[in-house]
Parts: sequence; structure tokens; C-alpha cells
Amino acid sequence: MALRSDWSTDRCPIARSLDAVGDPWVMLILRGALQGVTRFEDFKRSLGVADNVLSRRLNGMVDAGLLVRRPYRGEHRTHLEYVLTDAGADLLPVLNALTLWGEKHTTRPRPDVSMTIIHTACGTTTDSADTCTGCGARLAPTDVTWHKSWRDQPDFPLTGAPA
Amino acid sequence: MALRSDWSTDRCPIARSLDAVGDPWVMLILRGALQGVTRFEDFKRSLGVADNVLSRRLNGMVDAGLLVRRPYRGEHRTHLEYVLTDAGADLLPVLNALTLWGEKHTTRPRPDVSMTIIHTACGTTTDSADTCTGCGARLAPTDVTWHKSWRDQPDFPLTGAPA
Repeated sequence: MALRSDWSTDRCPIARSLDAVGDPWVMLILRGALQGVTRFEDFKRSLGVADNVLSRRLNGMVDAGLLVRRPYRGEHRTHLEYVLTDAGADLLPVLNALTLWGEKHTTRPRPDVSMTIIHTACGTTTDSADTCTGCGARLAPTDVTWHKSWRDQPDFPLTGAPA
Repeated sequence: MALRSDWSTDRCPIARSLDAVGDPWVMLILRGALQGVTRFEDFKRSLGVADNVLSRRLNGMVDAGLLVRRPYRGEHRTHLEYVLTDAGADLLPVLNALTLWGEKHTTRPRPDVSMTIIHTACGTTTDSADTCTGCGARLAPTDVTWHKSWRDQPDFPLTGAPA
């Protein structure tokens, strides 16, 4: 999904990746998808994003292989929801790296607001994007919880691609 | 540097990080800065980017604390170059995570084109964004080489923030 330039055939994998995910809305949609959001209205509500912006990003993410469309039966008719692929779920380290950088280098709106990455299998709060700094295991979405101090709900694991 | 929305005071560190680096040109400028590029003309040449686009991104990155301006004496007058801060250099895991994801999930333009992340202290090709999968050390830019199969030059370590 080239928004400015087409880097999809660049030799550098950083540039090719940015062609798919170098857009803040795409990253925020991935953040939601990893937390189990699948439906257009739920993405819209959680992100406060305009319909056309969201629609364009979701379509681009399907084209880029990050999400697949899946039908579900609504109250009156069949709708489509958007489900992470393996490639989409594999972006967890990018989002974790942004989490850790943001916690360290940006200003929290209040001192008591924080987000941590927990490897649920061993309970360690890890400060690596892809590795548990407690037990050394690689982090898979379903073994990871994003603990957000401002949330009342209990923590739940992230969502991977369906088997 | 909010290009679309202002996420700089969001509770979520992912959103706050994207406020600073959620732009593909910013990430590509960081990629160059980590490889030792500091001068406007060199960023411009290596990225093939328009003056106004580059200028706006560099200014935004200074405002966001990713780069600092430093004067240097040119042939005729003093110019400014752009040098990574600690916060800028700390984005290495984000770029490494994009590298690893791109190598795995995007299509190389030719089969022989590849980029690997080498922990120079022990020589391991690591497949973690921030940790050497050989010796377990945290990756600092000055201990890391990005090996690009399409480059003739010998590999050299990345650039951190000046001491």
C-alpha cells in the first residue's frame, strides 16, 4: 500500500516493510487486531477514525497480506470482519519495539499511565521486543499480554493468526 | 511531528511513538542516520527525496528529539548536519524488527538480495530486533552491522549517538 512512494520492490527490507506498514493508522489497526478487534465498527470506535480512512487502510492491509476478510452473520445480514494473518501477527515485535521506545522516550500524559509487555508463560515483564528477558523464549502474540495501567479489565493475551 | 492526528499525549506509548516516527520518510532517514549519514545532500541523494519533504522531516525529527543539528565547516561557509540523539539511536530495534519482518514476509526483488543483522562482538547473525541470539547481549548500534548482499563495500558498524 504505497501512500507516497512505491518501496515494494526495493532491495532493502526496511523499505519494503514500510511500504506495507509505514503508516500510523496501519500500525494502530494492527495494535487493535492483536488485541482481538476484527470488526469495522469496533476499529472505527476505538480509533476515532473516519470511515474512508479506515476503509482504505483495511483494504490495503488485505492486499498486503496482513489481514484476511472473513464473513460473519450479523443481526440482519452477513458482514465481513478482518482477521490477522501470520504475517500480520508477526508484526508484534515492531509494535513491542514502539511500545518500549515510547515508554522510554516520550512523555506520559500522567505519571501513573504505563504500558508493559508481559510474557504470560513465565510472568516476566520483558523489555525486549521479541524475546522474554526472563526465560529467553521467543514472544508469540498468544503468550503475551499488554498490561495497560489505565485499563480496568483484567489483562488478556494478544491474538495471533487463527490456526 | 503530527502529520495526520496528534497522538503525542495519548496514553498508549505505541500511539505516542507513532506521533514521532509513524512516517516512512522518518524511518528511512533514521536508517540513513544509523548508517552514518548526517548531511542534507547525502540524505537527499540516498533517498531520492524532494527538498521540501526532506527538510520538513528533518525539522520534525529535531523537534521530536531524534536528531540534533551540529554545525560543520563546508568549502565556503558553515552548514548544519543532523546527528542522532540517544533517543534516535534507541530506535534501532524498530528498524531491526522491520528488517526481520521484511526479509520474512515481503518479496525480494531478486533471490540473491538479502539483509542480515550481525552482532559484531560475537559474529552472530541475529534474528532478534534487540538481542543477540548468539551471546544474549543487548544490541547497541555500535555493536551491530547491517550486512547487505548488494553492497560492494565491507560491512561497518552502525552509528550511535556521539558520546
